[in-house]
Amino acid sequence: MKEAKENCVFCKILNKELPVSMVYEDEKIAVFVDLFPVNEGHILIIPKYHAPYMKDVDDETLQHIMLYAKKINAALRSSKYKCEGINLFVADGETAGQEVFHFHLHVYPRFREDGFGFKYNASKHFLESERSNMNEIALELKGKLN
Amino acid sequence: MKEAKENCVFCKILNKELPVSMVYEDEKIAVFVDLFPVNEGHILIIPKYHAPYMKDVDDETLQHIMLYAKKINAALRSSKYKCEGINLFVADGETAGQEVFHFHLHVYPRFREDGFGFKYNASKHFLESERSNMNEIALELKGKLN
Repeated sequence: MKEAKENCVFCKILNKELPVSMVYEDEKIAVFVDLFPVNEGHILIIPKYHAPYMKDVDDETLQHIMLYAKKINAALRSSKYKCEGINLFVADGETAGQEVFHFHLHVYPRFREDGFGFKYNASKHFLESERSNMNEIALELKGKLN
Repeated sequence: MKEAKENCVFCKILNKELPVSMVYEDEKIAVFVDLFPVNEGHILIIPKYHAPYMKDVDDETLQHIMLYAKKINAALRSSKYKCEGINLFVADGETAGQEVFHFHLHVYPRFREDGFGFKYNASKHFLESERSNMNEIALELKGKLN
């Protein structure tokens, strides 16, 4: 099963069965260099326990991950690597682009003409919405929030 | 100046000078429907005060934003909208794709064949890195973390 801990490369890293270039580590999270970077300086932040999806990460750890994203953002901007902007990215679910089923937040530098960006279809993405439809979405989600 | 509060459309929304389809609001954050969605159900989470970049958002508010990203993720997955996966995304800086200079976390649903994804150059992005280079990056960033 793709979500199994036994097959999880991030758990193997945490267990020192695979090499890692660690930036920071504490009892809750590990922060390390991505093996397949968008740009040089691409960092991953993960919980220290096996949690395939965002729903599996406890609130305190998620909040700690966000705090370290801010710190890594600042560190990258003050580093020697090219960094004019930063993207944070999470793929939660295979359909969303998730490849390792252990929750991870990507933090990567961007610079002018780095050639990276979104691929989209101008006939269906980023089109201005009707307010009535937006109100319906808000109402639906309000009812599902708890 | 692009970062000025006077020109900020999210501040105008918060001041009720522009319409909004609000999903949730408290003293720290506002959660509302994106006018230009990737897919139906695309949500933005913002701090209630004008903070152009991630560095301008206080830690407590950032952590609260992450908590609500988890809640919106769950709400979208249980809603009537198409949602097989979720992306979280932040563009911090114009070069990173930021268009409104008031920090915002995107939370949007993904589904099979939605036609959305990354545009990249296979000759320079997502290439396997040399471990020595990764170790150098980790060392450099360790020195910049505080």
